[in-house]
Amino acid sequence: MAVLGTVAVEVFIPVAALIGIAFAVLQWYMVARVAVNSDAGGGAGGKSRGGGSGVLEEDNEEEYGVDRLAVEARCAEIQQAISIGATSFLLTEYKYLAVFMAAFAAVIFLFLGSARRFSTRPEPCAYDPARECRPALANAAFSAVAFLLGALTSVLSGYLGMRVATFANARTALEARRGIDCAFAVAFRSGAAMGFLLASSALLVLYVAVNLFGLYYGDDWGGLYESITGYGLGGSSVALFGRVGGGIYTKAADVGADLVGKVERNIPEDDPRNPAVIADNVGDNVGDIAGMGSDLFGSYAESSCAALFVASISSFGTEHNFAAMMYPLLVSAVGLLVCAATTVVATDVSEVECTDEIGPMLKRQILISTVLMTGGIAAVTFLALPARFTLFDFGNDKHVKNWHLFICVSAGLWAGLVIGYVTEYFTSNAYAPVQAVARSCRTGAATNVIFGLAVGYKSVIVPILAIAAAIYASFRLAAMYGIALAALGMLSTIATGLAIDAYGPISDNAGGIAEMSGMPHRIRERTDALDAAGNTTAAIGKGFAIGSAALVSLALFGAYVSRAGIKAVDVLSPRVFVGLLVGAMLPYWFSAMTMRSVGSAALRMVEEVRRQFDTIPGLAEGLATPDYATCVRISTDASLRKMMAPGALVMLSPLVVGTLFGVETLAGLLAGALVSGVQVAISASNSGGAWDNAKKYIEAGMSEEARSLGPKGSEAHKAAVIGDTIGDPLKDTSGPSLNILIKLMAVESLVFAPFFAAHGGIIFDRL
Amino acid sequence: MAVLGTVAVEVFIPVAALIGIAFAVLQWYMVARVAVNSDAGGGAGGKSRGGGSGVLEEDNEEEYGVDRLAVEARCAEIQQAISIGATSFLLTEYKYLAVFMAAFAAVIFLFLGSARRFSTRPEPCAYDPARECRPALANAAFSAVAFLLGALTSVLSGYLGMRVATFANARTALEARRGIDCAFAVAFRSGAAMGFLLASSALLVLYVAVNLFGLYYGDDWGGLYESITGYGLGGSSVALFGRVGGGIYTKAADVGADLVGKVERNIPEDDPRNPAVIADNVGDNVGDIAGMGSDLFGSYAESSCAALFVASISSFGTEHNFAAMMYPLLVSAVGLLVCAATTVVATDVSEVECTDEIGPMLKRQILISTVLMTGGIAAVTFLALPARFTLFDFGNDKHVKNWHLFICVSAGLWAGLVIGYVTEYFTSNAYAPVQAVARSCRTGAATNVIFGLAVGYKSVIVPILAIAAAIYASFRLAAMYGIALAALGMLSTIATGLAIDAYGPISDNAGGIAEMSGMPHRIRERTDALDAAGNTTAAIGKGFAIGSAALVSLALFGAYVSRAGIKAVDVLSPRVFVGLLVGAMLPYWFSAMTMRSVGSAALRMVEEVRRQFDTIPGLAEGLATPDYATCVRISTDASLRKMMAPGALVMLSPLVVGTLFGVETLAGLLAGALVSGVQVAISASNSGGAWDNAKKYIEAGMSEEARSLGPKGSEAHKAAVIGDTIGDPLKDTSGPSLNILIKLMAVESLVFAPFFAAHGGIIFDRL
Repeated sequence: MAVLGTVAVEVFIPVAALIGIAFAVLQWYMVARVAVNSDAGGGAGGKSRGGGSGVLEEDNEEEYGVDRLAVEARCAEIQQAISIGATSFLLTEYKYLAVFMAAFAAVIFLFLGSARRFSTRPEPCAYDPARECRPALANAAFSAVAFLLGALTSVLSGYLGMRVATFANARTALEARRGIDCAFAVAFRSGAAMGFLLASSALLVLYVAVNLFGLYYGDDWGGLYESITGYGLGGSSVALFGRVGGGIYTKAADVGADLVGKVERNIPEDDPRNPAVIADNVGDNVGDIAGMGSDLFGSYAESSCAALFVASISSFGTEHNFAAMMYPLLVSAVGLLVCAATTVVATDVSEVECTDEIGPMLKRQILISTVLMTGGIAAVTFLALPARFTLFDFGNDKHVKNWHLFICVSAGLWAGLVIGYVTEYFTSNAYAPVQAVARSCRTGAATNVIFGLAVGYKSVIVPILAIAAAIYASFRLAAMYGIALAALGMLSTIATGLAIDAYGPISDNAGGIAEMSGMPHRIRERTDALDAAGNTTAAIGKGFAIGSAALVSLALFGAYVSRAGIKAVDVLSPRVFVGLLVGAMLPYWFSAMTMRSVGSAALRMVEEVRRQFDTIPGLAEGLATPDYATCVRISTDASLRKMMAPGALVMLSPLVVGTLFGVETLAGLLAGALVSGVQVAISASNSGGAWDNAKKYIEAGMSEEARSLGPKGSEAHKAAVIGDTIGDPLKDTSGPSLNILIKLMAVESLVFAPFFAAHGGIIFDRL
Repeated sequence: MAVLGTVAVEVFIPVAALIGIAFAVLQWYMVARVAVNSDAGGGAGGKSRGGGSGVLEEDNEEEYGVDRLAVEARCAEIQQAISIGATSFLLTEYKYLAVFMAAFAAVIFLFLGSARRFSTRPEPCAYDPARECRPALANAAFSAVAFLLGALTSVLSGYLGMRVATFANARTALEARRGIDCAFAVAFRSGAAMGFLLASSALLVLYVAVNLFGLYYGDDWGGLYESITGYGLGGSSVALFGRVGGGIYTKAADVGADLVGKVERNIPEDDPRNPAVIADNVGDNVGDIAGMGSDLFGSYAESSCAALFVASISSFGTEHNFAAMMYPLLVSAVGLLVCAATTVVATDVSEVECTDEIGPMLKRQILISTVLMTGGIAAVTFLALPARFTLFDFGNDKHVKNWHLFICVSAGLWAGLVIGYVTEYFTSNAYAPVQAVARSCRTGAATNVIFGLAVGYKSVIVPILAIAAAIYASFRLAAMYGIALAALGMLSTIATGLAIDAYGPISDNAGGIAEMSGMPHRIRERTDALDAAGNTTAAIGKGFAIGSAALVSLALFGAYVSRAGIKAVDVLSPRVFVGLLVGAMLPYWFSAMTMRSVGSAALRMVEEVRRQFDTIPGLAEGLATPDYATCVRISTDASLRKMMAPGALVMLSPLVVGTLFGVETLAGLLAGALVSGVQVAISASNSGGAWDNAKKYIEAGMSEEARSLGPKGSEAHKAAVIGDTIGDPLKDTSGPSLNILIKLMAVESLVFAPFFAAHGGIIFDRL
């Protein structure tokens, strides 16, 4: 038997989660010591800066002299505006979501209840008909509750992330005056605060839910973990709307601001004269921060649920080995501790002194956490698991040893590292691919776009091979449980992943605030350097999100197939093949909708910005204040209206296909959407990242060649801006939303499987 | 039993093929009556025009007066240059291919021979072990011979198509002086000549090969049709290099010419001052004509082979029912007659009088041929097939009635019509999608690209649903044989399809020749109108090519699975899933290579064109002749060098995966490449088509709105040109090559299946 007893597990998991939360609060506290004078307007700034540890570089004084107070006041003002905009957007969005969530919880209850005609009698257990399990109606009710709980936690994740980020952006800009190291520390600590808060609370809520549900379910672990999958569905549903809505919001504003500002009016990015600039900065927080937070929370919740569900029908479940059963949560708990140690290395051991060190530093974070985590996995595996046990493998028993599971989790973890590094190679302007894209700007926007698309396509190869290797290894060793564990392995360092990911938009915002508040050019250069590294980490974060989504979806797919009672998903069956083909099409349909939404919202934004420049006297000269609020409203309206259709496509496809065409076609649909969506998502994200950094490469004049292409405003730079603008919706709207498409369809199918198995296929059964 | 006897079948098929060839010759003869004075240089033109039926519009006389002779001489000269360039490129390409083909034939022989250790003893038949079949070594030898035969026929198809097209282009331009109807007739008849020549010779060669091989195989029909599949492999191998090489050639020249000519120098398209203009026109003939010809020939050969192979192991084969066995060829033979009737409607019954009528006219061709063919299929089905029979369905017998097969063939045929019409909707500037793309040019190239990508993605939906419906119906009714028949159904009107497809590049060339030879503006307007319709028909042709490729690949996939002895392709097996995921990645890898090749070849072309403008005195003013030959050489070199890597990727992937990872992983790979490649191909083709026609929409000022966006040289038009340039490699290089990727991998796997089944999987068998 395993070393770790039930009590130790019951203590270790919540304690690790609480340590994570405490760590997040500590980071937040460190950030909060940088004061921003939020009584703006007047001139009382400056004094509250006392908390900071460094001193302002003295030679700066002359640069802004008496203006310093004004700059600080302006920073506070802008931060306020961004925070208010983001909060009001999220609250509006959540209001809509609340209605949707309530309705969908009712759908879950009705569909699942109707699978057994709302019977309140105990049922024979699905995997051990000799025993009695809880009635289907209870499962329906608990699934609906778990769904709401997941949705709520996801909302909370997004909201808290946004609060942290809008709290940190102005502070990062202000600290940039002290030097690049201070600014980096603030941005990175804020990211860490968000990362740990999310990862810890996700673990804690799941742990509490399992224990509370357990009070009712007793030893019906199958029923318990079936219901718990609703938690994953809730998390990802919110994430879907968060990603799509936030993505449309941010890119409508960004594209609109760039098209008029940079291309037509030739004013810099984030210039306060641009009416869309506040909307653009709000967008970073609601899209890249809140959306990403919900997304990764969803992945985490789903992979945990998938692992728990599969485990519950293995020998752990039948023998009621609590420590082994909790293995997925133990891995996550250890991950929190490992990530905390990794963060300490970044904030307290090593130091960033010049801009070139930021990228390698962030990269090192991933490496350190991966290496440490490998040890952590080994420890938890040998402590918590019996030496041998059997797993459910689609009707057969599979005999597994504990070190097999160590390999599964590690395979996912290291595949994540490979994806991160490859993504960095293809999207950082320190390497050949982005430099070739920049070089192609010499012959104009068309070649830039052609090369950027090619880079995105090419960047798919190695990540797919890495995912395939992880899948093969873990699938062979531990069937679907192995896949779920590989997904968890990739996500075990989620706190660090989120930290370096959130760092990007925070730096981006800091740059915007520095520009808008009129800080001197060299401060802006520092925030630009932070931002360029942030573009790459954002791409890495998306790589993680996609890779883990692929693994999670496969695990959920496996769980769905078990729960729906499908024996084989044979491509040679017409039902399956048709599903596969149509499933592979869904990412395109979805992308068509989101791209078009961004495009048409951007057109409206362009018109509004042009109108303001044309009708507000003195705006172009900086003598008048633009009407930021109208632009914020345009983005808000567009994103709320336009997120409906793609959201409906994703939420309804499994329901329609399962009901009309049956469980096998749905299985094909899931597999098709998975294998096709992953490619579209990776290539879209990386093309976008490459274009963005090719532009930054030219702007920063980072080499002899880059200087020959620049400066800002040159023909090559204009071509680079066009590429960047095209990449915006690809990398921040459609690409990352596709992760959610694949995993949400899978988890939804899993939740509704009993209904489809009982009543699905009404069309194909007649043809 | 069926009504049609063996003798009737033996007579009908070759006679239909010969009628088709005669019809092609007749069309060619009609085109040849328009004389082009090829003794150029002097001024002796004009007299030989006598063959034409109309008269030159008298009022033209004044426009070019004495210049007319010079214009005609110049036409002949340009035609000569294009023809020489295209011929020399194709001959060089075929020289390389000859080496490759010989080597690959040897590989086929060695691999297939080694599957049974080069045994020369008769083997027990695969599907009836009680009987004796021909030795494996004979199959290896005949497969290699069939491969070479297919390759040769494909080379011939491409070459003849190119000859017809380069023969017709100047004649179309000259006839445009007589009026739009005359020009249309020449372009359309030339397309028809090519279409019928290809379709008929493909049928004839296949028919002859079956009969010749039959002399040796006797009643071992399984062995006979296994060997015959080599014919399909040969056809598609040549098509692969034709499409990729031709695609790189044409787009390197096109992109290079546009970037300097239209964007930098502001000179019109096809202006003779542009040094890359001849290479561009050569490219149309080697890429769009020769490549497309080989491609569709390959699809046709493969679907016939797949159908024949599957039929040979059904009750037709065991009962030696010759008429039923030849059903696939009978369908194609009837198709030839139907297409001939359809063409007569276009050339002799209806008449095109104004430019608006061209598009609808071509569309009507597809509709007419589809309706007539439905009747033809019904006739041949009830005449040739017994009322009931059994088919092979992966180890089970499937009982089928003859009207089931009628539905299978018709499903493919009508799915083709749907694809054609949808493609037209998304790529013609008469409808909303292209107009929205044009409108988005108002805010610049970035929004144009975003909208164009979205249109391409959206255009995938209906074709995929149509293909899925056809697959489901035919799969349910007649298993894999049904799929092969659906593919044949879609290709049964291939002669008409090729005719309207070839019409496009011929008109494009005609426009180029009109411009270069200095014909007046209104002539150029007429050829432009022909060309705009041609862009749409080219997109429709690509839609057909992709749709049929999807069906063919699935049929080949089914045949491969049978031949490799796989019982089920279960997505839940790690081997299959890994194959599926990696297979879905291959289209991206392939596209990355081809896009990059076009991009870098275009960059070299741009440099050369710029160099010539800078160093040749008087070139920009039209006083000096550019050095066309160097540009032709750049395109030739680039395409020959750069087609190797993507070609190797496609040819080697099945060999490597089959040998190292085994037949199941290869099955997954094929399915993944199929479902993912189809989407990439359709969206790439249609985005490209939409951008091209959005540009044409602005240029032609077809509506109030279009005029507000134009004229040529406006900011919106420049944005449209950028979109068009980006679309070039998507629609003419990577998109259409993907068809070949999916079907070539499938047919190659089918041919090598015995080897993989015997020796494959050396890595996964150990892990």
